[in-house]
Amino acid sequence: MSYQYALIVGTGSGLSASLARAFAKAGMGIALAARSTDKLSQLAQETGAKTYSCDATQCAQVEKLFAALDAAACAPDVVVYNASYRARGALIELDPAEVEKSIAVSAFGGFLVAQAAVRRMLPRAHGAILFTGASASVKGYAQSAPFAMAKFALRGLAQSMARELSSQGIHVAHFVIDGGIRGARRSEPPDKPDSLLDPAAIAASYLHVLQQPRSAWTSEIELRPWVEKF
Amino acid sequence: MSYQYALIVGTGSGLSASLARAFAKAGMGIALAARSTDKLSQLAQETGAKTYSCDATQCAQVEKLFAALDAAACAPDVVVYNASYRARGALIELDPAEVEKSIAVSAFGGFLVAQAAVRRMLPRAHGAILFTGASASVKGYAQSAPFAMAKFALRGLAQSMARELSSQGIHVAHFVIDGGIRGARRSEPPDKPDSLLDPAAIAASYLHVLQQPRSAWTSEIELRPWVEKF
Amino acid sequence: MSYQYALIVGTGSGLSASLARAFAKAGMGIALAARSTDKLSQLAQETGAKTYSCDATQCAQVEKLFAALDAAACAPDVVVYNASYRARGALIELDPAEVEKSIAVSAFGGFLVAQAAVRRMLPRAHGAILFTGASASVKGYAQSAPFAMAKFALRGLAQSMARELSSQGIHVAHFVIDGGIRGARRSEPPDKPDSLLDPAAIAASYLHVLQQPRSAWTSEIELRPWVEKF
Amino acid sequence: MSYQYALIVGTGSGLSASLARAFAKAGMGIALAARSTDKLSQLAQETGAKTYSCDATQCAQVEKLFAALDAAACAPDVVVYNASYRARGALIELDPAEVEKSIAVSAFGGFLVAQAAVRRMLPRAHGAILFTGASASVKGYAQSAPFAMAKFALRGLAQSMARELSSQGIHVAHFVIDGGIRGARRSEPPDKPDSLLDPAAIAASYLHVLQQPRSAWTSEIELRPWVEKF
Repeated sequence: MSYQYALIVGTGSGLSASLARAFAKAGMGIALAARSTDKLSQLAQETGAKTYSCDATQCAQVEKLFAALDAAACAPDVVVYNASYRARGALIELDPAEVEKSIAVSAFGGFLVAQAAVRRMLPRAHGAILFTGASASVKGYAQSAPFAMAKFALRGLAQSMARELSSQGIHVAHFVIDGGIRGARRSEPPDKPDSLLDPAAIAASYLHVLQQPRSAWTSEIELRPWVEKF
Repeated sequence: MSYQYALIVGTGSGLSASLARAFAKAGMGIALAARSTDKLSQLAQETGAKTYSCDATQCAQVEKLFAALDAAACAPDVVVYNASYRARGALIELDPAEVEKSIAVSAFGGFLVAQAAVRRMLPRAHGAILFTGASASVKGYAQSAPFAMAKFALRGLAQSMARELSSQGIHVAHFVIDGGIRGARRSEPPDKPDSLLDPAAIAASYLHVLQQPRSAWTSEIELRPWVEKF
Repeated sequence: MSYQYALIVGTGSGLSASLARAFAKAGMGIALAARSTDKLSQLAQETGAKTYSCDATQCAQVEKLFAALDAAACAPDVVVYNASYRARGALIELDPAEVEKSIAVSAFGGFLVAQAAVRRMLPRAHGAILFTGASASVKGYAQSAPFAMAKFALRGLAQSMARELSSQGIHVAHFVIDGGIRGARRSEPPDKPDSLLDPAAIAASYLHVLQQPRSAWTSEIELRPWVEKF
Repeated sequence: MSYQYALIVGTGSGLSASLARAFAKAGMGIALAARSTDKLSQLAQETGAKTYSCDATQCAQVEKLFAALDAAACAPDVVVYNASYRARGALIELDPAEVEKSIAVSAFGGFLVAQAAVRRMLPRAHGAILFTGASASVKGYAQSAPFAMAKFALRGLAQSMARELSSQGIHVAHFVIDGGIRGARRSEPPDKPDSLLDPAAIAASYLHVLQQPRSAWTSEIELRPWVEKF
């Protein structure tokens, strides 16, 4: 594994915890950033992670986060952008502020974090930026315009960055997570085993992408439960 | 032509002028909305259009625009969202405010306008929303992350709306304009005739989509100069 | 309309009849080619079409067809490839001969016809080749591997031809017909009006694509009933 | 690794050799099938593979291959379809027989092999079918219609099979190999290191996909050299 230090942004979900565990087990140092770090202490202890409070939609807070990482000599060479916010509902009933928040959290924050990270990666021509997408990244669903806008935007960012930065040594990959993720508050019915994605299994695919040599980099990969309709 | 009144938002470009002319010729009333209406007087005179000053990224201004259309008994049954703003540059050099503006003008404004329009269309189960996309809607280019984010987001909005609203009588279509548009400030070199899209030709395709009966609606169509690489 | 003479291949369906009527009304001469011309006499009389017996999967028969058109001084500058054959069933129960036939009729015949047509179009740098696709062109469905293989292949042919031939004056377009087509043997239930594509409506969109000036050519367009899930 | 025995079809390329080595190292038994087995003896010795002569475009030969595997109690639970044939050239100069051969080798053979394999996998609800795609699987290039038709068709097959068979325990995955593969007869220039895909790196990604638990299966993944344009 050529990577040393991973920053995972948006640590609320089970996926971030599984990523932290998988990356730590692979020998990487871990930083966890989230709006609130209250619930991260156990995970931090388990993985040796440092935790940072950061609202990724705020430019100043993202700069402060990276300044803190710089100061700790922990400039990440892996960044996973794993934050998202979903507003649902009929188009005519959507609150515009919720649409803005969906785009800000799920896409614009990804830009801010990626930009700060890439500034530090480019001088060494080394680094990886991994974006967590969803079914909505490639298919705009009814009653879900804000998430479609946000996740499409994040995919556009990932594609643009992959085209711009790959040849400068930065591996950019977009993961289309096409299904629900198993978690503390969400488990599958007994008659439908493995119908939700196991976050540890997702993390194993993120880790695989990090292990790819540069002659065969993945820029997009789908992950889907065996019984999921698509 | 079953449509009566078209609102065209973002009238700066040659495309909006051509749309206004084509729609007026087809018998529709026209409203033109733009941040500044200074340069619209001649077009308004030519097409009989009313003009409205509106920053489509501002919810209150969009509401005011539609209130004015309501007051004039000109509720549009066709809306073309034709506004966009492009910031270019290497990812690490982009100004975050410019990224926000790209998304706001090119995508979020489209949501605000579409929402206000659809609220008026749904009770009559009749209306059409046309979104102007670009090459960047389906391919994220290097040095162009903000436009990729914005145009991908607009396509996500169009898809989500098409899935939600088609069966309620609202025709939603997304046009992938894959090339440069001929205009006052941009013409093709003599040795490359028709290498830029003629805005009148684009307008003819928008008009065709409006003429489609509901058994055969287009939700996405590409338009590209014959010599364009893709 | 800059086109003079249209060859429509695969005239069994209601779509070909509607195309013949629309093209004839627009002033074009018409040739209809099908394996059996038995049922074409009324349509031929109505549209002034000539009819030709041709199995488009057989190279010699396609050559003979075009030789006959040459001899009649009717070299078509528009060709619509509208033949297809669908074999359904679970993968493990499919008859390989049926799979071959699906590919031969729906895709390979399209190549043979397009090649013969383009040979005659290129010297004049003028012509159009229109391919009829289906939902299966962009989404491979369960229990339908042969049609997925064939319609994907036809789309690959259309894309390759568009990239190769557009700049030589040949307009190549692929129509994704995403729904069932209304016909003599298939009509919609009374409670689902316009839930099948009206072939006359489809034909109107084919005609529109033929009317596009070369600065704004469509290479792909979707057509779908307003109530169709997608 | 839950898989026991891998059949790799189309062993001419460096990719098949790398797959055989990677799978053997992971503990799987290996069968290699190709039209000619002459050049496979060293690889067979190295990996403990059995070799079989088989023209995958011929139904009878594919049946004979699987009967031989049955007789040897080596029914594969992994099949990689790695055969392809590419004919290039201007559309009007293509030999129809070469087009047919491209489709037969690159796509129809994939159907025959997959069908025979799945018949043996379904009773145990266990197995994996991996298809090797190319840039041409998702983009039809000029001067390359036969390969576009064939590789699009193979992708259609993979999608249809994934939708039909995943929930029955068969993992179907399509790999978009977007670049040239390094090999005995093809190496990169010294100033462009890693500009061709290392087949061992590709094989590592195939192996990873086989290791995925069924809650998070990949059905499509792109692999591309860091400096490749796309």
